[in-house]
Amino acid sequence: MVSFECDYIAGAHPEILKRLAETNLEPMSGYGFDPYTEHAKEKIKKACGCPEAEVELMVGGTQTNAIVISTMLNDWEGVIAADSGHVSVHEAGAIEYTGHKVIELPAVDGKLSAESVRNYLQTFYSDVTHEHMVIPGMVYLSFPTEPGTLYSKAELRTLSEVCREYGMVLYLDGARLGYGLMSKACDLTLAEIAELTDVFYIGGTKVGALCGEAAFFTKGNKPKHFLTSLKKRGGLLAKGRLLGVQFDTLFTDNLYFEISRHAIEMAERIKEIIREKGWRVYMDSPTNQQLIIMNEDEMKRLGEKVRFDRWGVYDEEHTIVRLASSWSTSEADIDELKRV
Amino acid sequence: MVSFECDYIAGAHPEILKRLAETNLEPMSGYGFDPYTEHAKEKIKKACGCPEAEVELMVGGTQTNAIVISTMLNDWEGVIAADSGHVSVHEAGAIEYTGHKVIELPAVDGKLSAESVRNYLQTFYSDVTHEHMVIPGMVYLSFPTEPGTLYSKAELRTLSEVCREYGMVLYLDGARLGYGLMSKACDLTLAEIAELTDVFYIGGTKVGALCGEAAFFTKGNKPKHFLTSLKKRGGLLAKGRLLGVQFDTLFTDNLYFEISRHAIEMAERIKEIIREKGWRVYMDSPTNQQLIIMNEDEMKRLGEKVRFDRWGVYDEEHTIVRLASSWSTSEADIDELKRV
Amino acid sequence: MVSFECDYIAGAHPEILKRLAETNLEPMSGYGFDPYTEHAKEKIKKACGCPEAEVELMVGGTQTNAIVISTMLNDWEGVIAADSGHVSVHEAGAIEYTGHKVIELPAVDGKLSAESVRNYLQTFYSDVTHEHMVIPGMVYLSFPTEPGTLYSKAELRTLSEVCREYGMVLYLDGARLGYGLMSKACDLTLAEIAELTDVFYIGGTKVGALCGEAAFFTKGNKPKHFLTSLKKRGGLLAKGRLLGVQFDTLFTDNLYFEISRHAIEMAERIKEIIREKGWRVYMDSPTNQQLIIMNEDEMKRLGEKVRFDRWGVYDEEHTIVRLASSWSTSEADIDELKRV
Amino acid sequence: MVSFECDYIAGAHPEILKRLAETNLEPMSGYGFDPYTEHAKEKIKKACGCPEAEVELMVGGTQTNAIVISTMLNDWEGVIAADSGHVSVHEAGAIEYTGHKVIELPAVDGKLSAESVRNYLQTFYSDVTHEHMVIPGMVYLSFPTEPGTLYSKAELRTLSEVCREYGMVLYLDGARLGYGLMSKACDLTLAEIAELTDVFYIGGTKVGALCGEAAFFTKGNKPKHFLTSLKKRGGLLAKGRLLGVQFDTLFTDNLYFEISRHAIEMAERIKEIIREKGWRVYMDSPTNQQLIIMNEDEMKRLGEKVRFDRWGVYDEEHTIVRLASSWSTSEADIDELKRV
Repeated sequence: MVSFECDYIAGAHPEILKRLAETNLEPMSGYGFDPYTEHAKEKIKKACGCPEAEVELMVGGTQTNAIVISTMLNDWEGVIAADSGHVSVHEAGAIEYTGHKVIELPAVDGKLSAESVRNYLQTFYSDVTHEHMVIPGMVYLSFPTEPGTLYSKAELRTLSEVCREYGMVLYLDGARLGYGLMSKACDLTLAEIAELTDVFYIGGTKVGALCGEAAFFTKGNKPKHFLTSLKKRGGLLAKGRLLGVQFDTLFTDNLYFEISRHAIEMAERIKEIIREKGWRVYMDSPTNQQLIIMNEDEMKRLGEKVRFDRWGVYDEEHTIVRLASSWSTSEADIDELKRV
Repeated sequence: MVSFECDYIAGAHPEILKRLAETNLEPMSGYGFDPYTEHAKEKIKKACGCPEAEVELMVGGTQTNAIVISTMLNDWEGVIAADSGHVSVHEAGAIEYTGHKVIELPAVDGKLSAESVRNYLQTFYSDVTHEHMVIPGMVYLSFPTEPGTLYSKAELRTLSEVCREYGMVLYLDGARLGYGLMSKACDLTLAEIAELTDVFYIGGTKVGALCGEAAFFTKGNKPKHFLTSLKKRGGLLAKGRLLGVQFDTLFTDNLYFEISRHAIEMAERIKEIIREKGWRVYMDSPTNQQLIIMNEDEMKRLGEKVRFDRWGVYDEEHTIVRLASSWSTSEADIDELKRV
Repeated sequence: MVSFECDYIAGAHPEILKRLAETNLEPMSGYGFDPYTEHAKEKIKKACGCPEAEVELMVGGTQTNAIVISTMLNDWEGVIAADSGHVSVHEAGAIEYTGHKVIELPAVDGKLSAESVRNYLQTFYSDVTHEHMVIPGMVYLSFPTEPGTLYSKAELRTLSEVCREYGMVLYLDGARLGYGLMSKACDLTLAEIAELTDVFYIGGTKVGALCGEAAFFTKGNKPKHFLTSLKKRGGLLAKGRLLGVQFDTLFTDNLYFEISRHAIEMAERIKEIIREKGWRVYMDSPTNQQLIIMNEDEMKRLGEKVRFDRWGVYDEEHTIVRLASSWSTSEADIDELKRV
Repeated sequence: MVSFECDYIAGAHPEILKRLAETNLEPMSGYGFDPYTEHAKEKIKKACGCPEAEVELMVGGTQTNAIVISTMLNDWEGVIAADSGHVSVHEAGAIEYTGHKVIELPAVDGKLSAESVRNYLQTFYSDVTHEHMVIPGMVYLSFPTEPGTLYSKAELRTLSEVCREYGMVLYLDGARLGYGLMSKACDLTLAEIAELTDVFYIGGTKVGALCGEAAFFTKGNKPKHFLTSLKKRGGLLAKGRLLGVQFDTLFTDNLYFEISRHAIEMAERIKEIIREKGWRVYMDSPTNQQLIIMNEDEMKRLGEKVRFDRWGVYDEEHTIVRLASSWSTSEADIDELKRV
C-alpha cells in the first residue's frame, strides 16, 4: 500500500547505499575520525558559506536537541520554545531529562513570534523575583515548524536580534531543513540561517539518510570537550563512518537540495489533490507535510488505499491527518493518492 | 518599619524557641531518629485522622516539592500543574532538575480545574503518539494557591476522582496550609485533605517555624528507601531534632491552627483597610495574602511606612503588590498600615 | 595499510548491506514498528531459547548501558562493576549522568568475582549506616571483558546466585558477545546466559553491523513504558528498520555466529604470530582482542605496516597495544601482520 | 545516658539560641537578604583574611557538597576523592545524582596523597583515549578526614600545586573544620586554607549550630547566578536569618574557635581513657573523633552506660566504634565514660 505516513518511511537515497557499499571495507578509525566525516564537515561548511563553523554529526533528532540544548545552556537557564514545538511536546521530556526547563510560549501557526519572546523577557526581567525563576538562555525554533510552516527572513532576523539583545542562544531545529529551504515560500538561504542563528542542525533522517543529523555551530561556539559530553549522553557513534559517508554523499553535487526540491514538488501535487477532493485543510503548509481534518469515516475510506498519520486530535469527532511527501515519494505514489 | 512583605519575615513562634531551648542539651540521635520527631509524626497523623499515613519532615518548600515529585513519579512521567503554580514558575526549574517535566495548564483564579485536567488527559490518550510524550503521572495543586485562593471540597473531590480514574497521584502543596484551613471560605478539613489526596505537605516555614515542612503520605505510599533518596537529594538533616521539636510544638495544643487563625483575622483587617483606602484589588483572596495593583507613585508612598512585596508585573505601569499577614502580624502592625 | 586497531574498523557484513538495499524502498512505520524489527526480535528470542523474553534494539553500546541501567535501577540504587569495566572507565560518566553510582570493585583478569561481590554486600549490609549509602541494585559484567577474558559457566552461575540472594539484577554487556560465545575457551551458550542473567545485550556494532545492540530482557522484566523512557534518553531511532534489518540478517542462517567464529580463528592466528615474534603478552585472551606490551620503538616499527590501538598505559615506558580481529579480518590481513 | 555517638547529638550553642530569640521578631527579608547573613559573611571573610572571597550559607553538608561540586564542575568533569571520602561513601550518591562521577583513589589514613593524584593524572593524560573518560576537574578533600586525620600544610600545599598545574579546583569539605584547626597536630590556619584551596566550607552543624554550612569561594570564583542554581537544587532557605544569625554568632568573639578548642580538649581526655582502658585503637586521630575496635561483648558492656556509633565494619567479629566529642561534651560526660 502506498504510504504518506511520514517522511521517514523509506530507507536511504540509493546513492547513499551505493557509497556505503563502496567504502564498506576500507579500514577507518572510529568515533568520527574517518576521512568521510571530515569531508562531510567541510562540504557542509562550504554549503553554509561559513568556514569558521564547527560541525558535529549525531544519530537522531531528539538526541541532537537534547545534546545541543544541554551542552549550550548554563546550569541556571532554560530554553524558550513554542508550545507546539517538538521539544515541548514530542520528545518525552528529553530536555527536562537533562535538567533544563522548556519555557513554552503560545505558537501562532506553529511559530514563535519575536514579539511574544520580547514580551516574555520584558516581563521576566521587570519581575524583581526573577532570580527565583528559570532564566531564559536560548530560543528554540524549528524550520519548518511542526505543522510545516516557515519563518520568513524578516521574522528570523527579528528573533535573532531579540536573542542577541538578551544574550540568548538562537537554536534552529532543522530536522526537515531541506524541505524548508526548497519551499517556494522560503526567502532564506542556508548561509543566512548560519548567519542569523548561533546553532542549528541539518536533518538527515528525514531527508535521504538512514539516520543522522549535522549540528552546526556557527560562530566558533561549539561547547568545549564536546566529544566527552557526547559520549556521556550516549550520543557518540563507534562507526562514525555511517554518518560521515551519508552526509558526504548528501552534500556532494547538491544531492541534499535536489531531493528536497523533489519532495516539495510532490507536496505541491498533494496540495492540488487536497483541493480537488475538497478535503478540509488544518493549516496551510508550504513544505512537505500537509495537514487535513477528517472524521473517522473519511479516514476509514482513505485508509483503504493509503497509509497516513493521525497527527493530532482536532476535536472529539475529528482527527488531524498528515500526508507527507519526502525524497522517496514517486509519481506513482501521487497517482495512487489521486485515485482514492 | 512595619513589614507585610511576606509570611516569612519573622523567626519562629516563641513557643518553638522555648521548646528548642528546653530540649537543647538532651543528647539525641540524628537524621530524624529522635523522640521529638517521633512525637511530631504521631501528632500530625492524629490531627489528620489518618493513622496509617507516613510523615517525613524536610527543610523547605521547593526541596519538598522536588523530593516528593521525583520520588513518586515514574521515569516516564511528568506532573500537571497550573501555569501559575509554584513548581511551574518560582522554583528555578527544581522539578526539571530531577528530570521530570511540569505540564502546565492554564490556571483560573490560580487554580487548576478538574475539567481542564480531564480535557488534557482525554486529548492526550486519544493521541496515538502519546507514548512519545511525557505521560501525566501526578497532579500538583497548592492550597492556598499562589494568589491566595482556595479549592472547595467539591473541586478537590472532582480532581481526586480524575486522578484516580487515570491512575495519577494527587499532590497538594500546603506551604500555607494553616492559612487555607483557617480561612472562613474553607469548607475542607485536614482529614478530608488526607482522604482526597495521595500526598500533601503541611508547611511550617510560613506558619510559625524557622524552617520545616511535613510531607504526609496518606495511603501507605511513602516511596521505599525514602531516607536514602532524601540523602541523595541533600534533603536529610543531621539534626533532625530541629524539625522534630518544631512540628511537635506546632501540633501540641492546636498551636498550628491557632496561629493560623490569628493570621487570617489580621488578613481580614488588611482587607478592610484595602477597601477603605480604595486600593485596586488584583484577585480576591480569602487567605493571608492580599494582592493589589499599584503604580510606582502609589508604591513609593506606601513604601515610606510599610515594607511590601512586588509580587508580579501587572502591566507596563502597574505592579501587583502583596500584603501578607502571618502568625507574627500584630495589631500594632495593622494600625501602622491604617495610617499609611 | 592493514588495520587491527579495533573491531569496528569496517562497515557492515556485505549480507547486511545487501538486505538494506533490497528492503530500502519498502514503506515502513518508524520507531521499530516495522516487520524486520519484529522478525529480528523473534529470531533473537529463538536463538536464546527464551520465548518469554523481550528484545529492544538500540544504536550503541554506551547508550544501551546507560538506558538499561537507569531504567532498571531504583532511585536509591547503584550498579556494581569491575573497576576496569566499560561503565567504570570508558563511558565518560554516562551512568553517573543518569544519577546512579557505579560501585567499583577490583577486577581480577578483567573480571568481577562472586566472592568479592559477596564480601562487599556482607560488609555493606552489616554496616548500620548503609541506608546513607548507595544501595547495590545491579551487578554489571561484560562478556568478553575489556581485556578479552571470559567468565566460565561456574563463575556466571555463582554471580547469578549472589544477585538473586540479594535481590539484585544481573546485567551482562555483550558488546562482543559473539566473540565470547565462539571462543574455544567458552563453556556457555546463549541460552545459558539468558537463563543466568536478568538482562544482557547482544552487540551488533562490533560483530558485523553498522550500528546496533539488542537488549534482551530475559524474564518479562522489561521496564514499563520502555519506548517513552527510550525516547526521553534520545535512544529511539526514527528509522527503526536500520536496526531491524541488520539484526534480522545477523540472526538468519547463523550469520552472527559464523562471522564471530571467523574472527576467533583470525585471533588464533594473531596469537600464533605474537608467539612467533616473541611479543610480550599483557593478558592472555581467548577472544578477539590480543593485548601486548610494547615500548615506543617497537610501536614505531609495528606502526609502519599495521594500524593498532594504544589500549592503555602499562608503565612510563610501555604501552598496552591492542591487536583486534573481527568478522572483517581477512587472511591477507594476517599475512601482512606476519610480515611486520 | 551519656552519649559520644557523634558530634551532632546536641542542639545549638546556647549563645546561638539566645541570639535567635533576641532577633526573633525583627522583620527581615528572606533568602539571605537579611542583615545577620550580611554580618556573618563579613565576619567569616575577616576570619579567613580573605576580603575578596564570597560566602554562601547552606543548610547541610551533603547538600553543600552536591551544590558546590555540581556548580563548579564543567559538564565533562568529575571529582577526585579518597575512596573513604564522605562524597564517595556516605552521601547516598548525591554527587552522582548531579550527573558527575566521583573518581575514587585509595586513601591512606583517610587522606589523598598528592602523589597518587599526580600519578592518576599522568596516566590519565598519557592515555590517548582519555576524551572517552570523565575528565578530572576537581579534587575533594575533607579536613579533618572521615577517620579524623589531618592534612599538614606541606601536604595541602602539594595538593594545591597539583590542582593548579592541571587546572583543577581544590575543594575542602570542612564539616568539622573547627575541630581540625584547633587540633594540636594542626599546622594550618584558616587563612592558609583559604589561600591554598579554591573553595571550602566551614561546618556549622557539627560545631555549635542547629544547622548550616558556610561555603567559601576564595578567589572571586563563586558560580554565576548562584542563587538560582541554589534554588534549583532545593538549597535556598526562605528564612535565611536562621543561618545568618547562627554564623554571625559563631564568628563573633571567636566563639567558633573557642568551642572547637573545648571539643579537642575533651577528645584528649577521651584518648587518655582509651589508653587507660587498653581499648584497641583503629586509627590515631588528633581531632574530635576517636575510633576503636570492639567485639560484640565489649560493645554490649560499653553500651550499658554510653551511647556510641558503630562507625564501620572491621572484620566479621569486630566493629569500628566511634567516640566523638563536640562543643557540647561536658566534664561530667567524660567522668561518666571513665566509669565504664
